[in-house]
Amino acid sequence: MSQAVVFKLLGRRVRLGLIGGAQGSLIGPVHRTAARLDDCFDLAAGVFSSDPERSLNSAHAFGIKRGYTDVQAMIEAETVRADGIDAVAIMTPNDSHYEYAAAALDAGLDVICDKPLTNDYDSALALARKAHDRGRILSLTHNYSGYPMVREARATVTGGEIGALRLVNVRYVQGSLSRPVEAEPDKMAPRTKWRLDTAKGGKSHVLGDIGVHAHQLMSFVCGRRIAAVLADVGPSLPGRTAHDTAQVILKFDDGTRGQMLVSKVATGAQNVVSIEAYGEDGGIFWNQAEANDLRVMRLNRADEVRTRGLPSLHPHAQRATRLPTGHPEAFFEAFANIYTDFAELVAARIAGAEPDPLAQLTPNAWTGVDGLAFIDACLESTATGTWADVVYEHDRF
Amino acid sequence: MSQAVVFKLLGRRVRLGLIGGAQGSLIGPVHRTAARLDDCFDLAAGVFSSDPERSLNSAHAFGIKRGYTDVQAMIEAETVRADGIDAVAIMTPNDSHYEYAAAALDAGLDVICDKPLTNDYDSALALARKAHDRGRILSLTHNYSGYPMVREARATVTGGEIGALRLVNVRYVQGSLSRPVEAEPDKMAPRTKWRLDTAKGGKSHVLGDIGVHAHQLMSFVCGRRIAAVLADVGPSLPGRTAHDTAQVILKFDDGTRGQMLVSKVATGAQNVVSIEAYGEDGGIFWNQAEANDLRVMRLNRADEVRTRGLPSLHPHAQRATRLPTGHPEAFFEAFANIYTDFAELVAARIAGAEPDPLAQLTPNAWTGVDGLAFIDACLESTATGTWADVVYEHDRF
Amino acid sequence: MSQAVVFKLLGRRVRLGLIGGAQGSLIGPVHRTAARLDDCFDLAAGVFSSDPERSLNSAHAFGIKRGYTDVQAMIEAETVRADGIDAVAIMTPNDSHYEYAAAALDAGLDVICDKPLTNDYDSALALARKAHDRGRILSLTHNYSGYPMVREARATVTGGEIGALRLVNVRYVQGSLSRPVEAEPDKMAPRTKWRLDTAKGGKSHVLGDIGVHAHQLMSFVCGRRIAAVLADVGPSLPGRTAHDTAQVILKFDDGTRGQMLVSKVATGAQNVVSIEAYGEDGGIFWNQAEANDLRVMRLNRADEVRTRGLPSLHPHAQRATRLPTGHPEAFFEAFANIYTDFAELVAARIAGAEPDPLAQLTPNAWTGVDGLAFIDACLESTATGTWADVVYEHDRF
Amino acid sequence: MSQAVVFKLLGRRVRLGLIGGAQGSLIGPVHRTAARLDDCFDLAAGVFSSDPERSLNSAHAFGIKRGYTDVQAMIEAETVRADGIDAVAIMTPNDSHYEYAAAALDAGLDVICDKPLTNDYDSALALARKAHDRGRILSLTHNYSGYPMVREARATVTGGEIGALRLVNVRYVQGSLSRPVEAEPDKMAPRTKWRLDTAKGGKSHVLGDIGVHAHQLMSFVCGRRIAAVLADVGPSLPGRTAHDTAQVILKFDDGTRGQMLVSKVATGAQNVVSIEAYGEDGGIFWNQAEANDLRVMRLNRADEVRTRGLPSLHPHAQRATRLPTGHPEAFFEAFANIYTDFAELVAARIAGAEPDPLAQLTPNAWTGVDGLAFIDACLESTATGTWADVVYEHDRF
Repeated sequence: MSQAVVFKLLGRRVRLGLIGGAQGSLIGPVHRTAARLDDCFDLAAGVFSSDPERSLNSAHAFGIKRGYTDVQAMIEAETVRADGIDAVAIMTPNDSHYEYAAAALDAGLDVICDKPLTNDYDSALALARKAHDRGRILSLTHNYSGYPMVREARATVTGGEIGALRLVNVRYVQGSLSRPVEAEPDKMAPRTKWRLDTAKGGKSHVLGDIGVHAHQLMSFVCGRRIAAVLADVGPSLPGRTAHDTAQVILKFDDGTRGQMLVSKVATGAQNVVSIEAYGEDGGIFWNQAEANDLRVMRLNRADEVRTRGLPSLHPHAQRATRLPTGHPEAFFEAFANIYTDFAELVAARIAGAEPDPLAQLTPNAWTGVDGLAFIDACLESTATGTWADVVYEHDRF
Repeated sequence: MSQAVVFKLLGRRVRLGLIGGAQGSLIGPVHRTAARLDDCFDLAAGVFSSDPERSLNSAHAFGIKRGYTDVQAMIEAETVRADGIDAVAIMTPNDSHYEYAAAALDAGLDVICDKPLTNDYDSALALARKAHDRGRILSLTHNYSGYPMVREARATVTGGEIGALRLVNVRYVQGSLSRPVEAEPDKMAPRTKWRLDTAKGGKSHVLGDIGVHAHQLMSFVCGRRIAAVLADVGPSLPGRTAHDTAQVILKFDDGTRGQMLVSKVATGAQNVVSIEAYGEDGGIFWNQAEANDLRVMRLNRADEVRTRGLPSLHPHAQRATRLPTGHPEAFFEAFANIYTDFAELVAARIAGAEPDPLAQLTPNAWTGVDGLAFIDACLESTATGTWADVVYEHDRF
Repeated sequence: MSQAVVFKLLGRRVRLGLIGGAQGSLIGPVHRTAARLDDCFDLAAGVFSSDPERSLNSAHAFGIKRGYTDVQAMIEAETVRADGIDAVAIMTPNDSHYEYAAAALDAGLDVICDKPLTNDYDSALALARKAHDRGRILSLTHNYSGYPMVREARATVTGGEIGALRLVNVRYVQGSLSRPVEAEPDKMAPRTKWRLDTAKGGKSHVLGDIGVHAHQLMSFVCGRRIAAVLADVGPSLPGRTAHDTAQVILKFDDGTRGQMLVSKVATGAQNVVSIEAYGEDGGIFWNQAEANDLRVMRLNRADEVRTRGLPSLHPHAQRATRLPTGHPEAFFEAFANIYTDFAELVAARIAGAEPDPLAQLTPNAWTGVDGLAFIDACLESTATGTWADVVYEHDRF
Repeated sequence: MSQAVVFKLLGRRVRLGLIGGAQGSLIGPVHRTAARLDDCFDLAAGVFSSDPERSLNSAHAFGIKRGYTDVQAMIEAETVRADGIDAVAIMTPNDSHYEYAAAALDAGLDVICDKPLTNDYDSALALARKAHDRGRILSLTHNYSGYPMVREARATVTGGEIGALRLVNVRYVQGSLSRPVEAEPDKMAPRTKWRLDTAKGGKSHVLGDIGVHAHQLMSFVCGRRIAAVLADVGPSLPGRTAHDTAQVILKFDDGTRGQMLVSKVATGAQNVVSIEAYGEDGGIFWNQAEANDLRVMRLNRADEVRTRGLPSLHPHAQRATRLPTGHPEAFFEAFANIYTDFAELVAARIAGAEPDPLAQLTPNAWTGVDGLAFIDACLESTATGTWADVVYEHDRF
């Protein structure tokens, strides 16, 4: 269906250039699979590594015809081809996002980028402004908001079904840093190494890596911004300097209470991502482990369990659904929804058409900027031991 | 089995005098049922209400032979009878706990009391000292620690099975105050009314009513004290003054991180009480809704689901179990475990015998004092907006 | 509340004489706890074992004043006392149920009896007729139908909420006979031994022990009788003669399809008891492991999860509920509901009053007769390898 | 990784011709998405409908370059092209499977085909023999056996971890025929219409459509064949002739008991597919709704919950896994595993190499033949009302 939208607008698939995700990468296959899932993209070109040989070998291994050894070279070559790429997908370490995204936008390409948008607020804001000024799309793969039932949750909460919102709680916990892995740097996977390196991974590992997902999930579902935080962010193991845990009490801009627990020392918790939100008339609960269900609670009445695929769901969820109820969808499909939203936005941009408003709910540059403002506030609160406002210099939500 | 212990020591049941819990009370039937469950008590006497007629009517309605109209009168009359009560069970509004418990202890009676022990730290400490000085038992009905699998959790965590503890999270959320019920005082149930009245219910409704349960659950399972808190406690509805929500980031005395969400505006959350704790080697998760199971997570290995009744459980859980696996036990049985521990402690005290050390894990006066210290710290942190130490003037954990 | 009903009718508790359940028994404490839970009974007398010394020791150990050494003697002595027992509770091996129940009924006492009612259809029918002729109550502890949400399920299905019924499936599986325990008779618990002895336990162990529960659960929830069965009942281990598994395809009297899996070789299945029923408009699912919830499914709409304690439940469930939502009840409370129904029926019978019609839904002698007819049909079908009708010589459902 | 295997063997992707799955089809997108997921195939050609215009329009809509209007024409044209297809994927109504598969095999192409293989045993056997004689691959999309944790279940059961197998139970229930949809043929979806038409969909709708999945799941996990059945298969609604429900008691060839409930009148059951198997030492339970977990039960010990992605799983599950634990995979990924196994088998066949033995576990023509033998036995048992043997004229399991 999405493919039909893209074909109708463009008469072809969106041509995508990949940046990052060489052989051995964990996130590379996720992006490529997500891009392939709904068949809206041609994976036409790519630079897969800063090591030229590794980049070309990866292109060959992935069966991608136009391998390059340098991002700038790819952009230059592709933008002069008749069948050149329309957009790039960035899945490199965080510290390079700005450079690659800026170059692509400057060349008139649309961009889909892994989170966090950058490692600091200023460069994120600069990218958001650049995308705006150039009139190009900049999407961010906050994949948890691609789950249909997360979109149902948003429609439920922002549509007033649970009444005036009072309390929100998000957990994103896993155990990838339960043990002092940094004590044996030789045994660390490269992807762990650069993430723990503040120069590449950002000043707060846990916040940049998974905290921004929790922040986006909470903001997306509730449809409002976090105004202030009372946080304690840092390491949990003796001798560790990298931040592995973020504990946050927060207030939304309308005074609603929120809470967040984000940690990488939750041993045995298998990447648990969940949100619960309560209003005066009801509540919602979603948990990635049961991604196809949304629990809707109602004051003094039986709970509802809404299941992906039911005809009674909001269009937000319908749009993001491929299979009938009882045929579960999961992580790849949610990730693909972000890619497919992007494909529709790109196709509409090129065709000069109005995209589906629901596709525009997909995370964008401003989402990324908000995330970095949130990180800054959490770190300030941790440093001072008291409340810190989240400062947004920008208007757009 | 517990009955056998009591009979062996005393040759009879423990004789109990009830204070509070008249007809129409919610908690009264819970206490009486819990006391009856293992048949270790004679419910021999009682003052059920400060209204003399209501007290006597309740005694008659409950089939309890010796109804009184005044606590002091009951204590005086019973202590001179050959078959007089050994102990009292207090289930009155919080502000009367001190008076009744002190009078009973002064008369040489043992006491089992609903939580919170009192409404302020000083009087709680005075009771704890009095119980100690008089050599009498003072148990507190923190019933969640009566669940066999919570005791299994404690044995697992404190026994080192999950390695060095790093992170603990407790949720106690319900929706009893989701709506502004105080706006129509005439429609409020008496039990809600006194609880929201700070003179009777204490300075922070949510902390005194359910926060102390969360505090005790966390301390009990982890076997350590909370040292400092960063908290935001207060109302969540416009116009409300009563505290309905407590959000707490905390540190244990060994530096372990903890977090707590306690709220009465979680509409549709059915008295959700859960704890998760993570160490370097594994984790545990317990949730009242699946009270017969304890999830034990292990680094890079399959989770274990331990079920009440299995022969492989720790003696802590075995002791608190009546039925084989697959025959679930629940709230009353957990509450009864506190009563039965108390019966064994009383019988041992009277007989001059050593009680089972596992019975001594049951919540006592010091647990109550700790809870009030925790409340004070949370309120101080809320007022100052920064960390507050939990001040313990007493030694005993 | 039930206590209030009994006191209003009788001015006192129902006086109960216990038959069976000596020290070391598994089911004895369950019956006594269930009888004690709502405080509707005086456990006034008892014969606990056919061994006189063991019987008296048990009476002493349980704190029951009037211990006897012989059932007939108890009945004679009690029926002449002013404060003699009103009823007996039978928890002895199956082969003695008839004798004790008949003697009690003949003496004008009401009876509550463990299942199966007897080991054969004829004696069960004789007891049912005797109870009817004598005008006495004969209740049967099919405890699973005591769960409030099973009663909600019945009200939902029989009230037409799920439309015309089409398919019902019941599972009752456990692993108590997974291993060839009978190969080492010396190590077998006495309760296993008599149950596997066909003279005492009945001709088909699995059907008499747990199959009748599955049968009653299914009949109770659906409010209709099983008309015919296609069954395979027998042992599953090489060398075993005792029946450990019953597999049944069945038709209700209105043609509705049903299926049943009952087994004691389901290793690690912790006494799993569940029922699902489907009609043209919806379905229900209940599972003992989540006893406080009833899932109600609805064609093309979100599922409902109804929770014990909600004000929106049917009176059938409300009546059987003690605690608010989120404070779970379990096995003992469900068992107690059968005892409490019995107490109300006995009190009404003595007082010459009409009992609550909902109390009359509790399993009775006819339930027991139906169960034995079902056993006979399953065994006939197994023997012939084809369908067998369930023959009911009696009218009453 | 699978792509790497294919590229290593072939130097390119497997070229696939699609048969069926025009615009509006439900199963077409599933096959195409599954084929695309791991990027092992070029979807190079296709005949999407027997309506020529619809076929070509679909090719265009799907962006597939070589659209054809006739299967034979496609096979002829492609087999003479240097870059012609290696294999076909058949997703047409059941009655055409034989013709298309036979034509493809005769032309030297490999085949992957939707289930059931055909509508009758003889033609299925003929296809199996043809595939064998021609030395070509014939895979069958029994997608449930593509789930990694189903493969873990097989490894666990067949590896002896749960001891000698004693009891197996499978449920495959949904509510797609809860209502008498055939009463309004004009409103029926085309895919429902042909399925209920016995000429196209086969003699027993429920068995051909989902019963063969249940049969294959059971056989696959247990690694043994069903020898005899006691079944009742037919409609459940008054006036319906199509079979909507199959109830089966069965024996495996080693005497192990099995049971099956397969129905399309389970209103509100969302395509529930589950299997439980019990041996003397333990048991397993898997349910599609929690597809990433396998519950492993162990006599008198805590259950294990094994999660997809754990390093401790069997290679059977590892091979079928793309994402780390906690990043759930679901229906498409399981379906893709069948396609990817097929790609590896085809590549190895062409390259003259030995495929991974684990890829050879994927369902094949013999699986299809077994399924049709099972259908025949169930129908015979239903007709006679007694046990029927499953007759296998072929040797291979």
